[in-house]
Amino acid sequence: MVEVVSTIADCRAEVRKARSGGLTIGLVPTMGALHEGHLSLVRQSQADCDLTVASIFVNPLQFGPKEDFTSYPRDLDGDVRVLSSRERGPILVFAPSEKEMYPSELLTSVVQTKLDDHLCGPFRPGHFRGVLTVVLKLLEIVQPDRAYFGKKDYQQWRVVERMVSDLNVPVHVVGMATVREADGLAMSSRNRYLSPEERRNALCLYQALLAGRDRIRDGEKNAGRIAEAMRETVAEIEEVSVDYLSVVDPWSLQPVETVEGTVLLAGAVRVGRTRLIDNLEVGSQLG
Amino acid sequence: MVEVVSTIADCRAEVRKARSGGLTIGLVPTMGALHEGHLSLVRQSQADCDLTVASIFVNPLQFGPKEDFTSYPRDLDGDVRVLSSRERGPILVFAPSEKEMYPSELLTSVVQTKLDDHLCGPFRPGHFRGVLTVVLKLLEIVQPDRAYFGKKDYQQWRVVERMVSDLNVPVHVVGMATVREADGLAMSSRNRYLSPEERRNALCLYQALLAGRDRIRDGEKNAGRIAEAMRETVAEIEEVSVDYLSVVDPWSLQPVETVEGTVLLAGAVRVGRTRLIDNLEVGSQLG
Repeated sequence: MVEVVSTIADCRAEVRKARSGGLTIGLVPTMGALHEGHLSLVRQSQADCDLTVASIFVNPLQFGPKEDFTSYPRDLDGDVRVLSSRERGPILVFAPSEKEMYPSELLTSVVQTKLDDHLCGPFRPGHFRGVLTVVLKLLEIVQPDRAYFGKKDYQQWRVVERMVSDLNVPVHVVGMATVREADGLAMSSRNRYLSPEERRNALCLYQALLAGRDRIRDGEKNAGRIAEAMRETVAEIEEVSVDYLSVVDPWSLQPVETVEGTVLLAGAVRVGRTRLIDNLEVGSQLG
Repeated sequence: MVEVVSTIADCRAEVRKARSGGLTIGLVPTMGALHEGHLSLVRQSQADCDLTVASIFVNPLQFGPKEDFTSYPRDLDGDVRVLSSRERGPILVFAPSEKEMYPSELLTSVVQTKLDDHLCGPFRPGHFRGVLTVVLKLLEIVQPDRAYFGKKDYQQWRVVERMVSDLNVPVHVVGMATVREADGLAMSSRNRYLSPEERRNALCLYQALLAGRDRIRDGEKNAGRIAEAMRETVAEIEEVSVDYLSVVDPWSLQPVETVEGTVLLAGAVRVGRTRLIDNLEVGSQLG
């Protein structure tokens, strides 16, 4: 049962109805172009909560002026079809227009420091401000018990988690494991941009992360040498350029010099005009 | 019946209990040192809502490094006594420690543009960011149906109102008329700082606003000349210096050149080491 609403008022009315019946609410915020990664979030929400709200909104605020806001894939009918055919249990799709989310000039926004110092932060100025602001808006509109984020967007998950904790937002943030294609490529709506050749080349990002993990498993503790191993892997594919390939602390997202305990290997590359990100938690606990 | 809680968990538990019994919740955020202005907010909340939560928290985030954070009056017992003796109906006092509100470094904050361009904004850099952040935290902790703010802090009321609208926070923000002493001085916790002589001098701020209003009532439309009339009134008291005396639009808080419809006359002065603010809505509707 998939119901689609496009206004905040309708969304709130549906949620209120569910809430007054004692139901718990899960929120899966998406930008649409749903793939198995999104569906894994929906499934977890359905396992944990009575009603799942999947928001579909391509948020202009989180795109830079030269980024792919206009070309980002939009297919609400296709997304609703996927949800209807694949998922059981009640799903409320909240698909607002830009005007509905930003009816007048937005003067207020949510900002964060430190967690966006590295990784995608410096490459996408204003991105996390846009993410945090729209996520807070969605949390205020839906007031879910739980909200689900994919760890493919690891930094996004961490900044949202921190926002919720810093601002006392009464929601439990759940980070879900990255879902991969058979060959290991992390699922992403942006994979739709890739030509067949680019699709083959794109795999080098995941392979770079595996190469970094192999070094760690072989006992390498020097983050510089681990990063070097990752860079060498990508360097084999001439058509792919690197934004970053980093070894960072999985909580603070600050670079580490020496691997102790768990680290996050994270990378962003450009395959043609498509920017892809991926990461791997590597450590004693997470192996 | 006044109950005092100091932890977020206890506050949430009390509110949840009330909410599950179908009660509505009003929030009156204060920094304590309660006076008749605060009590008027409490009274309105009690008229509108079943349970009133009065928060008492001197928020370090909204004080500048040279401001009066350390000397700001703190008297929780006195405040609770005032509430107990003067008010009927259930009041939950939420009086958290700094550690409770900011248990770890705060990386996230709420910022706003435009509405803080003028009036107190330029004189208190970071102030409204601190206000918005703590107010959002309190709104998330209490999740009230209504929240009450005094229009003595007019700019604060407007920035909070805008934050709530921009971020879709599900609360109704109520602005309440300034409560004044018999001679017209706006009630303020900071009036406690004034010596008897300063107390007499402080009145010139309100008198300046009245002088501005008189000019408007006499048909003056030129904001510069209205501001001049206000400045002349304060200039009579040598011991008082002016931060600003402005004629602004009551919604955008931007300066107006020509008075049309309603305007806000707003001022901030320094009486000795004490900074006082006051304002007056003047216009066709508001007389």
